[in-house]
Amino acid sequence: MQFGPACGVAPVRPALQPVAPLTRTSVGIFGYGAFGQLAARHLSPDFAVCVHDPAATSSDDATIAMGDLATVAGCDIVVLAVPVTTLAAVVQAIAPLLRPGAVVLDVCSVKMEPARIMLDGLPEHVHLIATHPLFGPQSAQDGIAGLKIAVCPLRGRRARIISRFLARQLELDVVLTTPEEHDREAAVAQGLTHLIARIMMRMEDAPGHQTSGRITTRSFELLQQAIDMVRHDTIHVTHAIEAGNPFAAPVRQAFHEHALAVLEEAGRR
Amino acid sequence: MQFGPACGVAPVRPALQPVAPLTRTSVGIFGYGAFGQLAARHLSPDFAVCVHDPAATSSDDATIAMGDLATVAGCDIVVLAVPVTTLAAVVQAIAPLLRPGAVVLDVCSVKMEPARIMLDGLPEHVHLIATHPLFGPQSAQDGIAGLKIAVCPLRGRRARIISRFLARQLELDVVLTTPEEHDREAAVAQGLTHLIARIMMRMEDAPGHQTSGRITTRSFELLQQAIDMVRHDTIHVTHAIEAGNPFAAPVRQAFHEHALAVLEEAGRR
Repeated sequence: MQFGPACGVAPVRPALQPVAPLTRTSVGIFGYGAFGQLAARHLSPDFAVCVHDPAATSSDDATIAMGDLATVAGCDIVVLAVPVTTLAAVVQAIAPLLRPGAVVLDVCSVKMEPARIMLDGLPEHVHLIATHPLFGPQSAQDGIAGLKIAVCPLRGRRARIISRFLARQLELDVVLTTPEEHDREAAVAQGLTHLIARIMMRMEDAPGHQTSGRITTRSFELLQQAIDMVRHDTIHVTHAIEAGNPFAAPVRQAFHEHALAVLEEAGRR
Repeated sequence: MQFGPACGVAPVRPALQPVAPLTRTSVGIFGYGAFGQLAARHLSPDFAVCVHDPAATSSDDATIAMGDLATVAGCDIVVLAVPVTTLAAVVQAIAPLLRPGAVVLDVCSVKMEPARIMLDGLPEHVHLIATHPLFGPQSAQDGIAGLKIAVCPLRGRRARIISRFLARQLELDVVLTTPEEHDREAAVAQGLTHLIARIMMRMEDAPGHQTSGRITTRSFELLQQAIDMVRHDTIHVTHAIEAGNPFAAPVRQAFHEHALAVLEEAGRR
């Protein structure tokens, strides 16, 4: 299926017809995985959304159109909802297709590497913003209002208007930051949660450690809820958090050292 | 200050005056630490509560009386809200003072050792129940309705009526169990929460690991809430969880092994 003129968007808006309804701003989303779907669902009330994903050729949602590479790359706002490992290839493919003045955002779990890939690979005539929605499909089940999104302005002047939309329309808690600050802090927040979740999931599976689940404290229930939120993260997310964040390894090393100290102290009692 | 006839309780109730209001059942609480205070507050609407604690000779709450050892030991229901390390001494002191038919409960964080101490040290003429309220002052801040309490009947026939009170009047989620099942499962639930909390608290304090706290995921926020709930636990609670639970050391050992495997895997990426 081919699309007509860029998802129904007229790239040049008629300047002398202010009373006529303006054609809606278009958002093109690359990647229709867990996060691409979440983004499409929350953006479709406000934008003409079209998605490109070689692995997904149709959508259950009638308001979300699927489009070819050029159509989706030609939108006003382009969201790269692909794993960081695929980002460079997508950036290379869309670079010649982006229209001047477009805004390009990624949503990767780390920010330094995606920022570098976009700054190096995308033309000067597009605005660049690196973002990290600090939530996933699990934590967004009851809506996204109040959830956090990290926004790193990279190039151009669109970060302010995009941030305002995220804060006012989607009611997100916008955290303006830099790729480096993001990665440094995410190495603690995401790195430790993932590390602990992976240890706990291995323990659940180990013979002899299954419990009835009846004897639980409130704090253990919160710990379990935290683990349940990252339990179904894909290998791409795990990879980004563990290998794509330059601050992750030192945090893991520190965790290991402190764990040894606590275990030794507990063993001495 | 001395008390009159056991906190206003007539030990022998007049059998032929059913229309006259019965004197209220008395609850004696040994230990007025964090949990003794919480118990006194929640029991005082339904019972005549008196407390004995050598370290606390007065109460801010007018409905809660302080009493001497014999008075508090002479109550209908006796709650031992003391650390497991002190339990044997308190049991020895109160054993000759308990009245026949009284119900004695402990609230320690482990159950096998307190159960053995009470069964060995308290007379056959009292009913014995080991309990573990699976919450503390932190998680009880917004009320205790819906929170869990583990109840292990040890001797006599009062576990059912006590459980019914806990479930209907205090709206607790009563988990009937045995000391061994409790300790086996608590070694996972409490043991792991405590272990992780202690590691995380050490990391918070380590130089170079302070963050602005702005970049946090929902799952990390839940993890932090879990830690905040056990952050102020006393050394007695830590000691009971780590050294007083025979299943705790193997769980720590398993955590260590799985942590090493996860760290090694993450490092290889």
